[in-house]
Amino acid sequence: MPLRVVIIGGVAAGPKVAAKIMRLNPAAEVTVLEKGRFLSYAGCGLPYYISGQVADQKHLMSTPVGVVRDVDFFRKVKNVKVLNETEALEIDRAGKRVRARRAGEGNDFWLEYDKLVIATGARPVVPPLPNINLPNIYTLHGVHDAEAIKALLGEHKARDVVLVGGGLIGVETTEALVQSGCRVTVVEMLPQILRMLDEEMARLVERHMESHGVKVLTNTRVTGFEGNGRLSGVLTPQGRLPADLAILAIGVRPNVELARAAGLKIGVTGALQVDDMLRTSDPDIYAAGDCVESRDLVTGKPCFVPLGSTANKQGRVAAINICGGADRFPGVLGSTVCRVFDYCVARTGLTEAAARAEGYEPVTVVVPDFDRAHYMPDSKLMILKLVVDQRTRKLLGAQAVGPGAGDKRMDVAAMALTAGMTVDQLSKADLCYAPPYATALDALLTAANVARNKLDGAVAGLSAAEVKQRLEARADFVLLDVRGPDEFKQERLPGAISIPLGALRSRLGELPRDKEIVTYCKVSLRGYEAARILQGAGFPRVRILDGGVVAWPFEKVR
Amino acid sequence: MPLRVVIIGGVAAGPKVAAKIMRLNPAAEVTVLEKGRFLSYAGCGLPYYISGQVADQKHLMSTPVGVVRDVDFFRKVKNVKVLNETEALEIDRAGKRVRARRAGEGNDFWLEYDKLVIATGARPVVPPLPNINLPNIYTLHGVHDAEAIKALLGEHKARDVVLVGGGLIGVETTEALVQSGCRVTVVEMLPQILRMLDEEMARLVERHMESHGVKVLTNTRVTGFEGNGRLSGVLTPQGRLPADLAILAIGVRPNVELARAAGLKIGVTGALQVDDMLRTSDPDIYAAGDCVESRDLVTGKPCFVPLGSTANKQGRVAAINICGGADRFPGVLGSTVCRVFDYCVARTGLTEAAARAEGYEPVTVVVPDFDRAHYMPDSKLMILKLVVDQRTRKLLGAQAVGPGAGDKRMDVAAMALTAGMTVDQLSKADLCYAPPYATALDALLTAANVARNKLDGAVAGLSAAEVKQRLEARADFVLLDVRGPDEFKQERLPGAISIPLGALRSRLGELPRDKEIVTYCKVSLRGYEAARILQGAGFPRVRILDGGVVAWPFEKVR
Repeated sequence: MPLRVVIIGGVAAGPKVAAKIMRLNPAAEVTVLEKGRFLSYAGCGLPYYISGQVADQKHLMSTPVGVVRDVDFFRKVKNVKVLNETEALEIDRAGKRVRARRAGEGNDFWLEYDKLVIATGARPVVPPLPNINLPNIYTLHGVHDAEAIKALLGEHKARDVVLVGGGLIGVETTEALVQSGCRVTVVEMLPQILRMLDEEMARLVERHMESHGVKVLTNTRVTGFEGNGRLSGVLTPQGRLPADLAILAIGVRPNVELARAAGLKIGVTGALQVDDMLRTSDPDIYAAGDCVESRDLVTGKPCFVPLGSTANKQGRVAAINICGGADRFPGVLGSTVCRVFDYCVARTGLTEAAARAEGYEPVTVVVPDFDRAHYMPDSKLMILKLVVDQRTRKLLGAQAVGPGAGDKRMDVAAMALTAGMTVDQLSKADLCYAPPYATALDALLTAANVARNKLDGAVAGLSAAEVKQRLEARADFVLLDVRGPDEFKQERLPGAISIPLGALRSRLGELPRDKEIVTYCKVSLRGYEAARILQGAGFPRVRILDGGVVAWPFEKVR
Repeated sequence: MPLRVVIIGGVAAGPKVAAKIMRLNPAAEVTVLEKGRFLSYAGCGLPYYISGQVADQKHLMSTPVGVVRDVDFFRKVKNVKVLNETEALEIDRAGKRVRARRAGEGNDFWLEYDKLVIATGARPVVPPLPNINLPNIYTLHGVHDAEAIKALLGEHKARDVVLVGGGLIGVETTEALVQSGCRVTVVEMLPQILRMLDEEMARLVERHMESHGVKVLTNTRVTGFEGNGRLSGVLTPQGRLPADLAILAIGVRPNVELARAAGLKIGVTGALQVDDMLRTSDPDIYAAGDCVESRDLVTGKPCFVPLGSTANKQGRVAAINICGGADRFPGVLGSTVCRVFDYCVARTGLTEAAARAEGYEPVTVVVPDFDRAHYMPDSKLMILKLVVDQRTRKLLGAQAVGPGAGDKRMDVAAMALTAGMTVDQLSKADLCYAPPYATALDALLTAANVARNKLDGAVAGLSAAEVKQRLEARADFVLLDVRGPDEFKQERLPGAISIPLGALRSRLGELPRDKEIVTYCKVSLRGYEAARILQGAGFPRVRILDGGVVAWPFEKVR
């Protein structure tokens, strides 16, 4: 008897499971049920379809050589039977069968399985707000949403766009909206957009979006929508925002209704609980992709991080195990990257906020540096943040914001996290160096060294937020800018005085020894040098502004 | 008494040691002796100065904010005394002093030290060939070489350029030479250029250089130079090559004469032996940078891999230890990257050849893949090679060649090597994914999965060289191209027959069951699929051509 496998879900994890099973066990009979019409499409590519960078939505569901992954492709190439526009309605675990219905047809039918795979994915949160069902309010989840939004932009019918929620896919779409000539406002309930980042790093992204004309309203709740048959405004307690188009980007929830109804165990995060072999609480039922709960590799705790990259890996693991193997999916780091205009915004591991919430005592550093040798014409800045455990000196997480290639540094940091490395170990990593690709000491290793300095007490850093607090409280301290006079003239922090680094040793007499002195420069490399000079000269209370002017996310003086 | 430190060498490791010591111990008295005129310059940037991408050579010796790191800078900013154009002539270990002489001055002087640092670097190999001292024969080691070559190119005095040796810095300079309108020939004694790569990967680079008009002569020894007061030709047993300019890129040797004369221990590689605290055999003498021997992190054996990135890290370790700390430099992976026209060429860990020489039984895969989602307009191909230990399944090394961002994948591989990961672990790494930065399953993880398939016996691969051998021996086998008809028509391997993947299941009858069948496609993804179909249908001897057409480094049929 051939192995009969039914897979519920045909977008990401499902097709992966199907294809891998057929490669491992060519005699298997694999059936994929997909509620929608389209299979195997790259949902993450939708913002770039809207922007026109991806010319045809077919490209999002094609193989690299341009073959569309449709029902016919799966039959001919993969020997997999795909029933699209077919919804799974019920799992009969005792009878090992699934009840399904084809769209537009009245008759349900049953499919028997030896092994079942639940790959039902997730769906965007749609809050129950007044008038949420007005046309021109979309999520950005599937091909249909993207087509509708693209059509509105193409016909210039949408001028005012409100992004409800500063989530990943919304922020990724901002560039396309601005390029289409829209006025874009992001309305975020929390004090920051992009919860993948710590607040001060998110603020750098907010400022960058604002520099492209996007209005970012944090701490602002959407209370409803307004319109007469068609959206005209988004309501907030602070007033009404005109809107021809609203995109909901609040987050996603796992599709677990079918699994729950079948009595399968749901995890603490609300997603489907699986073991590291991706088995649900029923040993004949596996699950993979956006509907399952994962394990955080840093904390060891359950987490819900739905991403296409994870779906892909999990699909392979589930397939191997279904075919009698013993593969394991260890967990995730929450590694995430997105492009916001020309900024690369990325994260891996715990944010500082998450680390504190987990009970760690994190030491953090914010280090701006170039992604290539600074003298190369295409070198670009990145602002890196590391979160390090004070006790073990292990890296807990890392973030990158800026035009430079932060994605590379976050991938390296992800490997350090996977291996449980200390910043001491990370700082010695033998990474590839040539001027077009990195600095001699790669930015990530420099950041690790700054963290080591801080852990060793060689230098005390203050975050931008802490310095801002001192300024607002009119604290009696010296904010010392050690950049050159031209740099100082152009742009500086409020209340700063200027002594260029080269002159500092000869002008120590101008500084008070009884006050706290906070040094800074553009990136705080010279600021560090200055702090060491002052400490060497016996100044008792010297600190450095982490990340310098470049990473200062608040108002500057020009 | 302040700590007195003398540092011999002011280019890379030396200044790093000096600066870090002054930050750790501001009361220290640090003197740097530099034989040349220039300090702290980025030798790796010279090819880009020659190309004009770096407009001014000052940029190569400046801080990121444009301050030139000269004697004055070191005095004022770092409080370090630098004596440039001053050569160290003798180390008196018993007296703990160094004899030095300023260029052009007759009187030697002695400098006393508590701790001495040897950072004398390396120098290019200049073979004792006839007429080697003709003008217009240069190495590419320092600013002077670069200025001289640049001047020749700028005045269009050099039209025919011969690179003697296919070493790193020579290959990196090729683009600049071609852009200047030169006819460039690389003459390499060995069967391949760029010994950092395995032969078939190097051949891909050679072909790319040839596509830009560069002539690559491997297995060719330079026997001498010809010219009447000025270079006119380079001699080889195969004939004379016209040449207005020759650049020697044969490799470098550590400058250890001073250390050897002082009785310090020299390692098996000919470089200065140090322990992992970077102490030489004299506990008061440290060494760092291109003159020291390092430890290979994969094999645990001594190696000589002089690189600016290593010099930088070692400088910091030496400084910490000199100031009473206990930092350690664990070793290197030989991670290397260079740009060859628009190709990124990179390596980390052992090549297949090195792994075999070390007694491993390596399994290798060659996997071409995109660096970003294939539907993004700026996605580019990379050809990745992994070398894996059959016994432990641990990654031993990785290589990347192609226009895509191989540097990122090699850095991730370097981290996997540092952590001693198996390909199974690597394949589950949670790397950052978004279409502008990676594919859902990053290319490196795909390569790791291909290696797992091979280790598990799911598929047997043949290297391009092995398939070429079969073709040359007129072996009786079927070379099966499973790409589309258009792809096949455009370009194919010699002797291949065509059955597109989509038609394979229905055309199995056309294939003989008693012969070996070798499948391939563009990148061998469809080739793999085809092999699994054939195996599933009971074909007994099926293999895949590793890397497909894209990674085929030999002649193709058009």
